[in-house]
Amino acid sequence: MTVVPGSSFAALETPAALVDLDRFERNVSSMAAYAAQHRLALRPHIKTHKSTTVGAAQIASGAVGLTVATPAEAAVMSGVTRDILLAYPAIGPKLGKLMALPQETRLTVSLDSARAVNELHAAARAADRTVRVYVELDVGMHRVGVTAWDDAITLARLVQASAPLEYAGIAFYPGHIRDLVGGQDAKLEALRTALASATLALDSAGVAPGVVSGGSTPTVWRTHEITGVTEFRPGTYVYNDRGTAAIGSCSWDDCAFTVLSTVVSTSVPNQAVIDAGTKALGREPMRGVEGEGYGSLLDRPDVIVSRMNEEHGILDLSHTDWRPQVGDLVRVVPNHVCIVVHLNDVMYGVRGDRVERSWPVDARGRSHPMVGASA
Amino acid sequence: MTVVPGSSFAALETPAALVDLDRFERNVSSMAAYAAQHRLALRPHIKTHKSTTVGAAQIASGAVGLTVATPAEAAVMSGVTRDILLAYPAIGPKLGKLMALPQETRLTVSLDSARAVNELHAAARAADRTVRVYVELDVGMHRVGVTAWDDAITLARLVQASAPLEYAGIAFYPGHIRDLVGGQDAKLEALRTALASATLALDSAGVAPGVVSGGSTPTVWRTHEITGVTEFRPGTYVYNDRGTAAIGSCSWDDCAFTVLSTVVSTSVPNQAVIDAGTKALGREPMRGVEGEGYGSLLDRPDVIVSRMNEEHGILDLSHTDWRPQVGDLVRVVPNHVCIVVHLNDVMYGVRGDRVERSWPVDARGRSHPMVGASA
Repeated sequence: MTVVPGSSFAALETPAALVDLDRFERNVSSMAAYAAQHRLALRPHIKTHKSTTVGAAQIASGAVGLTVATPAEAAVMSGVTRDILLAYPAIGPKLGKLMALPQETRLTVSLDSARAVNELHAAARAADRTVRVYVELDVGMHRVGVTAWDDAITLARLVQASAPLEYAGIAFYPGHIRDLVGGQDAKLEALRTALASATLALDSAGVAPGVVSGGSTPTVWRTHEITGVTEFRPGTYVYNDRGTAAIGSCSWDDCAFTVLSTVVSTSVPNQAVIDAGTKALGREPMRGVEGEGYGSLLDRPDVIVSRMNEEHGILDLSHTDWRPQVGDLVRVVPNHVCIVVHLNDVMYGVRGDRVERSWPVDARGRSHPMVGASA
Repeated sequence: MTVVPGSSFAALETPAALVDLDRFERNVSSMAAYAAQHRLALRPHIKTHKSTTVGAAQIASGAVGLTVATPAEAAVMSGVTRDILLAYPAIGPKLGKLMALPQETRLTVSLDSARAVNELHAAARAADRTVRVYVELDVGMHRVGVTAWDDAITLARLVQASAPLEYAGIAFYPGHIRDLVGGQDAKLEALRTALASATLALDSAGVAPGVVSGGSTPTVWRTHEITGVTEFRPGTYVYNDRGTAAIGSCSWDDCAFTVLSTVVSTSVPNQAVIDAGTKALGREPMRGVEGEGYGSLLDRPDVIVSRMNEEHGILDLSHTDWRPQVGDLVRVVPNHVCIVVHLNDVMYGVRGDRVERSWPVDARGRSHPMVGASA
């Protein structure tokens, strides 16, 4: 199916990923303004949009570079920026793709193990390219990152002894702070304390971090309060989602991304079935705050997607008088937009109900063709 | 990255989707043998594999045709079979893609509303093509399907009065039966009773169904016990998964699909972090039986993926003495394989640790290019 720009989104085959361009543009410029106001280096994480179109818009609005999670994302994004952070340890075959990035790309990698330093060192030496390194700290999420500052010092020194690697700073991700709406200031204070003790230890050992890269979506508008941070890597803000709105990181009117869906069945009482299920919406719970279901309607946030199968989403109508008909269109704001974008190949940019343009989710795939493979 | 056939899967960039070819081939032939033994028409649902390679193998082993969930899947699968069931009501712009299927494709659509009949009728008449119709019944899942047999009769008659539509039979999906391992025979008996009352009502009204199309993965090996069923549409059996094994629809050794992953961090005690998170494994819970986590290791089913972020999976090591190192490879059997395949572009077929071939997940995308759109 082809869609002509300027036509109504009602002409789209559903489910389809819509981006409200007015909201999207406002989100991009608001974050750039916040970064400029507080003199923070803005290095957006492209995991949310996986698109060179959006990455280029972020760079154009003042981002210093981009953050990626995989070498495949780095390869695609090297087309729109020369400054890329891989916020993920590169181990094994991933290093080959990473070293194949254009020589003019300034590459930084965050990592938390000697094994990762040694593998990166060998690859960088063989490729004869400088690679900057951030040592990743665990500041409370307990996912990755060194938990003892002595280990951070050891890693920093190992990097310094591993030219052409360059020790560039530290990174952290406070993913354990899900909500700053009510009574969570204590967590922010604990984060400040942990970071201060880490930087003091590193300073004293002669491995002061040039860059302190951190922040997360729930803390994003308070990044300037996390003393010492020089760079932040927000991702979700470009589109936002039901979860971001629920924790107060944005308002409902900042939600730029929706999944356009069609009501396909109303045969069972008190529900309507739409053609967006787990393969279109993901199955992400609300986090950090109470909230049932997997998404809610843009125009009726009280109507939620309460159950799903692969291609079916069940709208719970038991708390509303609204009764949609088969064929009606609805727009779902998903709980977690990053997962939903990853399920799509194309985004449709709309103003009002008009489709203005589309762009590919060009950093989505993990395609690795085989030499001489049969199909 | 390119991989040469015959090389070890250790050369693959992770996460990567592996299919054990011995198990896969055995799964395909076992189901074909079961169908032949019980004289059931086998019409596999391609939602699990989304691949013409696998669809062609199913047809070659005796399937009468294929089942799909979307017109896009139908378009791709029309390359390997001339007999396609769209087990989903086609509403709105979807009908255009459906009518564009090759004229030689025998197309059947299942539906549950007069609106769907009328839209399909208009589209079929405009395209001058015969479309067979199954009336969908709700036999207890309460998702889609008519709940009153009088409504089924009304729909069947409406189809009969809507040439070039042809009333071909009825369809049902007993998705409410999650487990036939213990004490669930009562649910199977209730299903038999519901189906018998429906067919009796339809027979009496002069709209006897030519085809009775039903079944599900938990009930799949007992389809012949569901009196009256002439056709079944299993999907998951080609690959199987942790969920299918847990409910007893297959053994652990029938699990043909794994996500190859690399251990990227062991910095936090009692856990190891792998590079397969929600974007590689989905976030599907176990259903029908108890079971924590989102997948478990092929070689160590007691080690589960207990937490995830987008690109991080946390292996819980608190109940094992096994301690992997950064760089080690593990193979995860996901809870629900259909969702995981949908996240991948390429499957790697392996025998032992050797990559023999790869094939594209060519019916995965929902790509709809725009005419004259800017990128």
